[in-house]
Amino acid sequence: MGALLDGIYDGDMTIQEVLEHGDFGLGTFNQLDGEMVILDGVCYQLHADGTVNRADLQARTPFAAVTWFRADHVFDLDAPTDRAGLTAAVDARIESANLIYAVRISGHFSRIHTRTVSRQTRPYRGFTEATKNQSETVLEDTSGVMAGFRMPDYEQGISVAGYHLHFLDAAHARGGHALDFQITAARVEISVRSDLHLSLPTTAEFLNAHLDRADLDADIGRTEGG
Amino acid sequence: MGALLDGIYDGDMTIQEVLEHGDFGLGTFNQLDGEMVILDGVCYQLHADGTVNRADLQARTPFAAVTWFRADHVFDLDAPTDRAGLTAAVDARIESANLIYAVRISGHFSRIHTRTVSRQTRPYRGFTEATKNQSETVLEDTSGVMAGFRMPDYEQGISVAGYHLHFLDAAHARGGHALDFQITAARVEISVRSDLHLSLPTTAEFLNAHLDRADLDADIGRTEGG
Repeated sequence: MGALLDGIYDGDMTIQEVLEHGDFGLGTFNQLDGEMVILDGVCYQLHADGTVNRADLQARTPFAAVTWFRADHVFDLDAPTDRAGLTAAVDARIESANLIYAVRISGHFSRIHTRTVSRQTRPYRGFTEATKNQSETVLEDTSGVMAGFRMPDYEQGISVAGYHLHFLDAAHARGGHALDFQITAARVEISVRSDLHLSLPTTAEFLNAHLDRADLDADIGRTEGG
Repeated sequence: MGALLDGIYDGDMTIQEVLEHGDFGLGTFNQLDGEMVILDGVCYQLHADGTVNRADLQARTPFAAVTWFRADHVFDLDAPTDRAGLTAAVDARIESANLIYAVRISGHFSRIHTRTVSRQTRPYRGFTEATKNQSETVLEDTSGVMAGFRMPDYEQGISVAGYHLHFLDAAHARGGHALDFQITAARVEISVRSDLHLSLPTTAEFLNAHLDRADLDADIGRTEGG
């Protein structure tokens, strides 16, 4: 994630390789070409123009987080709940802020505000600049799945500390990085993880990147914040 | 590492399990009972009283870093070299500050200043407090191996950013965490890694720890610095 902030938008891992590490997750694609959602072992590519397709297995990614999803906690939200309400409900059920949690929220949303990053061309701008021109959409009255993670604070920079959620609608036709939302009713499943496998890119750009941690919290808050 | 700083000195992984993940590395033991060095698949426990034994495979560790050592770069130091000279020589040969490097320095040391943490009893003090009473020793005219890692800045808190080296003499009788040293002549081997597997403890104390990142750099510099 720290490398993305520095404008390192091309990784060397293929989607096929990513799917060997899990059946659930999120991420982006080389050239920052859209948001990634992985559900039930299928990788979807959500483009800035609003279209969605199954990702090419030979496409590559500069950043993805995946796991084998197995629900350890399940609960239902029956009353309207916003982002703060959802995260508070999950926080109340997890055993610790120090482990890794995959979170799957399946249900109906009265409103969901998404952004989708746009394919970049070289010379690449930094992520904060690139996301200023992101495509933002408000989806209303839609069913689907929000897929993502709650990461411990100490994973900031390796991944995104706190909640990071991507949305894909039930028709697999719309979605994006979830900024804010209003849940009508949903089932929430939580998968607990105490292991993290970090695979670094070995591209020349990554090897030469100056991964400065000084502004990490502010930059990730600005670009990934809900 | 962040949990150690908070006084979480008991983990749930056995030495036997650690050795399933590598044949080279360093760490400590439950209750902070000495420094760990792993060489050629053998785990040594370096006690604060100066004695060394092969670790009990059923002993447990709150922190260890291990890898399968395979030399990617090898060079010889023929002139006297201090810690700054060694790290500069390694820095000059590695391809990037963003990957993980295991470093093995085998040779003769005219002087090596080590510390060895002491077995703690409950209630545990924080690591900064605990290391104030550490046993420090200066070994002179000794042959042996320094084993350790150079970690990227973004691993601070997960591990120790920069260089982290433990020493074991050739007789497997003396050693400790290397604070400063003067190399007479040595062979330096570097093993390059682009993958990191982090396995978190699931003890109640770890789950309940408040892993505050605010003073991480200062605290790790104070307790682990060379």
